[in-house]
Amino acid sequence: MSEPWSLHSELAHDSSLVGDLPLSQVRLMHDANYPWLLLVPRHAGTAEIIDLDQADQAQLMTEIAGACRALKAVGRCDKLNVAAIGNVVPQLHVHIVARRRDDAAWPRPVWGAAPPAAYEPAARTALIAVLHRELQIG
Amino acid sequence: MSEPWSLHSELAHDSSLVGDLPLSQVRLMHDANYPWLLLVPRHAGTAEIIDLDQADQAQLMTEIAGACRALKAVGRCDKLNVAAIGNVVPQLHVHIVARRRDDAAWPRPVWGAAPPAAYEPAARTALIAVLHRELQIG
Repeated sequence: MSEPWSLHSELAHDSSLVGDLPLSQVRLMHDANYPWLLLVPRHAGTAEIIDLDQADQAQLMTEIAGACRALKAVGRCDKLNVAAIGNVVPQLHVHIVARRRDDAAWPRPVWGAAPPAAYEPAARTALIAVLHRELQIG
Repeated sequence: MSEPWSLHSELAHDSSLVGDLPLSQVRLMHDANYPWLLLVPRHAGTAEIIDLDQADQAQLMTEIAGACRALKAVGRCDKLNVAAIGNVVPQLHVHIVARRRDDAAWPRPVWGAAPPAAYEPAARTALIAVLHRELQIG
């Protein structure tokens, strides 16, 4: 029997659950500088996109596109950044970040660019609710 | 009639042609710090993955996976970084970078992290030839 999937502790600490898509858990990063989602495929031991089989790779692309559309629906967005880096946290996770020309890091990528800004709890809850609806989860 | 596709001048300047896959032009970035490919879908006016139709999104994922496998075939690679950023050059392009724990930027993402290192021309030509074969182009 294969090892059960569980979320890496660092991703759990840095983000909140939005909901589950067929392949990936969707999470909102704790950084109010940008609407910033993570997609984490629920397969144990997966570090690279090419560790997924071809059907799951296609499903991941479908979920990336859905996350992009959801972020565009929640506010002005000048550019979407989509990235699987994983140099620090080896569990496969895809960042989808809605960027604005006046955001804290523009035009740099977000990683290491600006200290995270805290969400007001009510604002975060409201954003998660909107994203949950836009992603047509559950 | 739709506008013909042409490569953005900045991408042309910073990279060399490896070859054409069904959707994307494959290019090698001029930075010997890391084997670093670009996939540039040959569709005019495309800035975001979600500007591609669903069939082309799936094809892009297939080509990303092929580029990942090709990079793993050319040398030791501890992690693949895959990213569509595009904050500076708006033409859709996907970075695929083979990372090593002892490379110039590790564990940071590559963008802006270390000055590009020049390839020796013969080394670049040889790497392009190997990538061309691994990608099964032409």
